[in-house]
Amino acid sequence: MADGLNMSRRIRRTPYTDRVEQVGVRGFSVVNHMLLPKAFEATIEEDYWHLREHVQLWDVSCQRQVQIAGPDAERLVQWMTPRSIARAKVGDCYYIPIIDQKGGLINDPVMLKIADDRFWLSIADSDVLLYASGLAIAAGLDVEIDEPDVSPLAVQGPKAEDLLVSLFGEEVRSIGFFKYKRFDMFGTSQVIARSGYSRQGGFEIYLDDGSLGGALWDMIWEAGQAYNIKPGCPNLIERIEGGLFSYGNEMTRENNPLEYDMSKFIKLDGSVDCIGLQALQSIAAEGVQREIRGVVFDGSKVPVCSKPWPVMVGSRQVGQITSGAWSPRLEANVGVSLIDRDYWTIGQEVTVLTPDGLVRNGRVSGFPMA
Amino acid sequence: MADGLNMSRRIRRTPYTDRVEQVGVRGFSVVNHMLLPKAFEATIEEDYWHLREHVQLWDVSCQRQVQIAGPDAERLVQWMTPRSIARAKVGDCYYIPIIDQKGGLINDPVMLKIADDRFWLSIADSDVLLYASGLAIAAGLDVEIDEPDVSPLAVQGPKAEDLLVSLFGEEVRSIGFFKYKRFDMFGTSQVIARSGYSRQGGFEIYLDDGSLGGALWDMIWEAGQAYNIKPGCPNLIERIEGGLFSYGNEMTRENNPLEYDMSKFIKLDGSVDCIGLQALQSIAAEGVQREIRGVVFDGSKVPVCSKPWPVMVGSRQVGQITSGAWSPRLEANVGVSLIDRDYWTIGQEVTVLTPDGLVRNGRVSGFPMA
Repeated sequence: MADGLNMSRRIRRTPYTDRVEQVGVRGFSVVNHMLLPKAFEATIEEDYWHLREHVQLWDVSCQRQVQIAGPDAERLVQWMTPRSIARAKVGDCYYIPIIDQKGGLINDPVMLKIADDRFWLSIADSDVLLYASGLAIAAGLDVEIDEPDVSPLAVQGPKAEDLLVSLFGEEVRSIGFFKYKRFDMFGTSQVIARSGYSRQGGFEIYLDDGSLGGALWDMIWEAGQAYNIKPGCPNLIERIEGGLFSYGNEMTRENNPLEYDMSKFIKLDGSVDCIGLQALQSIAAEGVQREIRGVVFDGSKVPVCSKPWPVMVGSRQVGQITSGAWSPRLEANVGVSLIDRDYWTIGQEVTVLTPDGLVRNGRVSGFPMA
Repeated sequence: MADGLNMSRRIRRTPYTDRVEQVGVRGFSVVNHMLLPKAFEATIEEDYWHLREHVQLWDVSCQRQVQIAGPDAERLVQWMTPRSIARAKVGDCYYIPIIDQKGGLINDPVMLKIADDRFWLSIADSDVLLYASGLAIAAGLDVEIDEPDVSPLAVQGPKAEDLLVSLFGEEVRSIGFFKYKRFDMFGTSQVIARSGYSRQGGFEIYLDDGSLGGALWDMIWEAGQAYNIKPGCPNLIERIEGGLFSYGNEMTRENNPLEYDMSKFIKLDGSVDCIGLQALQSIAAEGVQREIRGVVFDGSKVPVCSKPWPVMVGSRQVGQITSGAWSPRLEANVGVSLIDRDYWTIGQEVTVLTPDGLVRNGRVSGFPMA
């Protein structure tokens, strides 16, 4: 599974890296030029069950914030996304696909409205800062774009709320889904959002001051002992079953947001001034040719999906699995694939070709996988 | 040195990854969302001596090409860099810093002029494609920007020329430094440039068709047996001694090109229409406050530099080492640091604070380190 990762300053450490090393991190990924812990002592299956039952602490600092501030900030953010942000209020988190002039996906961040003229884009793995900077420079927009010293720490799982209430008070319970409120931490005002890259409930603390990272980790870790806390990370099995997609895995610039579960967020009626609007209108008028689906398939536990696995109906390729894992709950393999429109009906029988040479029988599924 | 790297489709494999696995890769880094092999069976010191005496094959596919093509291609490339490209000819390679409106470094690619209206930027680790796209979209430029299926394979070391002559003929010898010519490979026309991320001489083959990767690797590997070829990668010791800097390590957006060995490439007289020109003119008028230097320092072999090490004169911090290693040739540690102007004279005595708690004596050096 894990080959060696050679370290350098370029692969940035986070405010929590010392701590994840202390609790036995075994493997990392690299996202936004920064370490993302991806494996601890537990197996991925043990980690899956634990996340569903208890609470975990995740170093997701690699969800870097692109801060866009100034008189033209709202205009620039709106220009990059086909989701209307006109009604967003301070305290709101919006999932906003960012696209290019062809409708291709550049990233799929969560936007936090910090002030009327200040936004954070909590990004997946691509340099949105450079895209926004290019747009702002060429259009002469009055904005400042930078990456503040903000390092999200996720507290995920069904016991996350009780744990954070024990530290920050009952007010935590009043945070709505995809909303945030501010709380005092060590004499500073910090953002806690009800969000995160799992379907088990939880929060993300957008710690704005890396020097407090060790203290914040320690405080949650200590209080978490009463809740059976463990170190964790986005769990591949759980996110596949839950239909949480990953930029760079399921989505690239070759894809558009209409192929994903984003249509409900997107305004194509011309009321939004955004890049790529005409391209998306054309795609919508023609009808999308493929959509994201789950695939549940049999056979032995699959290896890591580092090259996509063809999804076949007979001798015809109808998709490719871009993330896959063995689910101990479903006692089957689960995967995510864009599926051609003639075959995307739930229940469609398919085969999956895995690199071990096996032809595995499966069927198309919706999300969350039952 | 190496913790585990967890694989996924997002961390892209290259056309040569199967081959580097066959020859015993032990560790990777991640550059431009792609695997860069960083360790094989040899120690870094063995690898250093081998590179200086023989020939190595490096999978540097992660040097992705940003292709800018169309009627406005030259205008866009020129807009991003303060180096004049007006006299560049097809067949030229130019090292061009790319900057933002404050003069901050976005990347430091090698530009290949492929045709009058087509350029490749062979990039370091940041998404230049997104910066260029943002600029082009907002300025309404008539260009196509994409990442072609081009995967550089480097042949580095003093025997590289003889090896490539044995495969592609005497014409290889006529390729000038930072020039390229086209050669037939498997019935396709491919670029070979005299360039690469070492000071030992060599070439980079810009293979334009990933499906030929295995065949190209095998052909060079087989012919290379007569030249004692080994698999390799940019060698940290060799690049530090040679003054080859690394974006993300020595350079970030906080730095400007005048702080590096780039002044000779940069036109500040107003004859070049580029972003950040005024900022660079102001910096030049004030005088740069720090410049890149080597530091040679004593004590036992240093660990990996994943957090910068302070460089001190007495109790004053005058720089920070961002890449460091033990040189078996100099029998000393070597590092790279920006050094404050009052202390950047060659021979200045300094101390270096390494994370093992040692205070090491050293001196400021130029490049290449003698």
